[in-house]
Amino acid sequence: MIYLTRRVEFSAAHTLYNPDMSPEENEQCFGKCGNPKGHGHNYVLEITVKGEIDKKTGFFINVDTLKQIIRAEVVDVLDHRFINVEIDYFKKNVPTCENMAMWVWSRLESKLENCSLHRVRLYETRNNYVEYYGDAGEEIR
Amino acid sequence: MIYLTRRVEFSAAHTLYNPDMSPEENEQCFGKCGNPKGHGHNYVLEITVKGEIDKKTGFFINVDTLKQIIRAEVVDVLDHRFINVEIDYFKKNVPTCENMAMWVWSRLESKLENCSLHRVRLYETRNNYVEYYGDAGEEIR
Amino acid sequence: MIYLTRRVEFSAAHTLYNPDMSPEENEQCFGKCGNPKGHGHNYVLEITVKGEIDKKTGFFINVDTLKQIIRAEVVDVLDHRFINVEIDYFKKNVPTCENMAMWVWSRLESKLENCSLHRVRLYETRNNYVEYYGDAGEEIR
Amino acid sequence: MIYLTRRVEFSAAHTLYNPDMSPEENEQCFGKCGNPKGHGHNYVLEITVKGEIDKKTGFFINVDTLKQIIRAEVVDVLDHRFINVEIDYFKKNVPTCENMAMWVWSRLESKLENCSLHRVRLYETRNNYVEYYGDAGEEIR
Amino acid sequence: MIYLTRRVEFSAAHTLYNPDMSPEENEQCFGKCGNPKGHGHNYVLEITVKGEIDKKTGFFINVDTLKQIIRAEVVDVLDHRFINVEIDYFKKNVPTCENMAMWVWSRLESKLENCSLHRVRLYETRNNYVEYYGDAGEEIR
Amino acid sequence: MIYLTRRVEFSAAHTLYNPDMSPEENEQCFGKCGNPKGHGHNYVLEITVKGEIDKKTGFFINVDTLKQIIRAEVVDVLDHRFINVEIDYFKKNVPTCENMAMWVWSRLESKLENCSLHRVRLYETRNNYVEYYGDAGEEIR
Repeated sequence: MIYLTRRVEFSAAHTLYNPDMSPEENEQCFGKCGNPKGHGHNYVLEITVKGEIDKKTGFFINVDTLKQIIRAEVVDVLDHRFINVEIDYFKKNVPTCENMAMWVWSRLESKLENCSLHRVRLYETRNNYVEYYGDAGEEIR
Repeated sequence: MIYLTRRVEFSAAHTLYNPDMSPEENEQCFGKCGNPKGHGHNYVLEITVKGEIDKKTGFFINVDTLKQIIRAEVVDVLDHRFINVEIDYFKKNVPTCENMAMWVWSRLESKLENCSLHRVRLYETRNNYVEYYGDAGEEIR
Repeated sequence: MIYLTRRVEFSAAHTLYNPDMSPEENEQCFGKCGNPKGHGHNYVLEITVKGEIDKKTGFFINVDTLKQIIRAEVVDVLDHRFINVEIDYFKKNVPTCENMAMWVWSRLESKLENCSLHRVRLYETRNNYVEYYGDAGEEIR
Repeated sequence: MIYLTRRVEFSAAHTLYNPDMSPEENEQCFGKCGNPKGHGHNYVLEITVKGEIDKKTGFFINVDTLKQIIRAEVVDVLDHRFINVEIDYFKKNVPTCENMAMWVWSRLESKLENCSLHRVRLYETRNNYVEYYGDAGEEIR
Repeated sequence: MIYLTRRVEFSAAHTLYNPDMSPEENEQCFGKCGNPKGHGHNYVLEITVKGEIDKKTGFFINVDTLKQIIRAEVVDVLDHRFINVEIDYFKKNVPTCENMAMWVWSRLESKLENCSLHRVRLYETRNNYVEYYGDAGEEIR
Repeated sequence: MIYLTRRVEFSAAHTLYNPDMSPEENEQCFGKCGNPKGHGHNYVLEITVKGEIDKKTGFFINVDTLKQIIRAEVVDVLDHRFINVEIDYFKKNVPTCENMAMWVWSRLESKLENCSLHRVRLYETRNNYVEYYGDAGEEIR
């Protein structure tokens, strides 16, 4: 068993604002991150997959194939978007880094062949990141 | 003469969209960066000042003083904001990295003592940055 | 279960010198790192906590809360200090990166609500780091 | 139990080309990475070892000792080489990042005292890396 | 006048070996970098252009246009190549970082509209880089 | 004319404390950086030299030669030292990043052949750095 990780970046706007909470509750819960006008990040996403290598090729998934799957399922969907406004799932769920990592998991899990998804790691900034290993994946479907 | 640089980060949303142009012109000019809903970045700002060092202290400006000026004049104004919507100057001027660097220059230039502003460097992403040395500063006042 | 990591930096001096060993033993054991006058680092500390996210907020601990706990318990204590000289625990225990990571664990473990401490990762330089998952925590109390 | 990681870099040329496959199969399997003339990388290698710390020294292996072992067994062998052409094992096995990580494991595993090898992490570029924890180590001996 | 920089990466093999010098001279001059089999790097290239911004768009060249020029003229030519063997100019000129930066200048200089080339910065590794401002550009045409 | 930069790191302790000033003046001037016990950094030093390249070798100074000069004149002197206590010049001059950059200039300027020193850039942390181009070099001899 060996682990392969592909790193990608995308730029998007979001706000931590739950429309089911009052403005005061949002302010107390999210502080400046909950400015309803929005702010944004250069997100860094690391996708780790695991598998057993093929003797002939020396890998279990071509890293370019993995890159194309991540691009189609995640980057092309989120890049240069205002997440709360343009992505259906996040109209009703606060796009915290935690929720976004779980959403990424649910997008990628079934698209992989010859390997399985091991970890989604998502950096909001250099100083904050979240890791998800899939055990709660059912919750966001 | 010696040069001192302070680096700071802030997270904001923007869009490259000129309201005086038609949607088609904006699309042609700015591509995906002109999505009117907005997107965002972790901006990295490097401010370089120059001066002559004082024999007694070994510096010409305390780096903490410089940090406070940058925070008050730039970071506290832009951080966690949607720039096109919340900053007056950028309601009428497209917040490209170029225009933002010139705006930062105009905010800082007159606030420095014992030294002068040498360069504003602004990274929109790790792959794109702009540098401004002030010779067009008058244009944005 | 999801994992959240906060990264912080602090600058401190230390030396790898055990006062219970002779100068020759220290020299043999620690080499240049044992210069008794001291040297220093820009330490990078990554604290990982784990928990289950709250549907309403999309997180289990606000990252600003986590940041304040790390600041109060670790950064404000170690930053701009000579560790061997100013921190009681390290007057008697060599402040290797390993011992420091365990000490950080013991400082943070009981301060967290709604989540538990998963990992302390401490970089002494870009090239050397230590990770601790808490299973020897009792040793340093 | 505590984990210590040492990071090193080396520069080498390789190509993903299996001489037992036809040029067309290589092209289809490896794309531009299979250019038979070769290309190269600044590889980044992180070696993680685990052990129990000694009360007297505050570590279980001196990081300089670890560095020397990695240098002798890996860096001095691969640095500034064309891996497919100059390293026997890779004359017959495609030097993918995956195969190289497993080869590194087999070189280091038996050389460590007072600790055991936990993980080999090898970056081919900033965007792609592989991790190996040794459970298939026997395959490459 | 404002300066815009675009950063790109490519992976290539090269060797510092001058076929007009004897093997002994090459060895003395280039050391391990002159291994005739070759080695490689993840090169990082930063291209800086300067111009005057257009009031309407807020820029003088769209960063995507700049990216496409760099890709067509440099990255697509060098990426995943063995430079000494596959690039005509470097069959007769040693592909040092210095010579490569000058070659990049000569490829890009005439392709830019509305702006002029200011600087080519080329990193061979994180620790070594070269900058060229064009004043010797004529030498390599 | 082409510019070559070599980057090195060293770890040292220092304090911003001028023994000719009272403790109160030091406190007011340097804040926490003036803790007399000391603190430390992983300093990053970038040395830029300029020259004209030799047609035969493709460079004007071998980067390994430059590295050895920097090591002998700077790194071996400062690394793993308490600068205020162990370096004569800094017993009487506050080791600010500014003063240290000027000191590095004075150490290297006369040691270079076939090229001249262009710039000393010294990072105290990722967020603060100083650049010196030599025009005040006479002051520290």
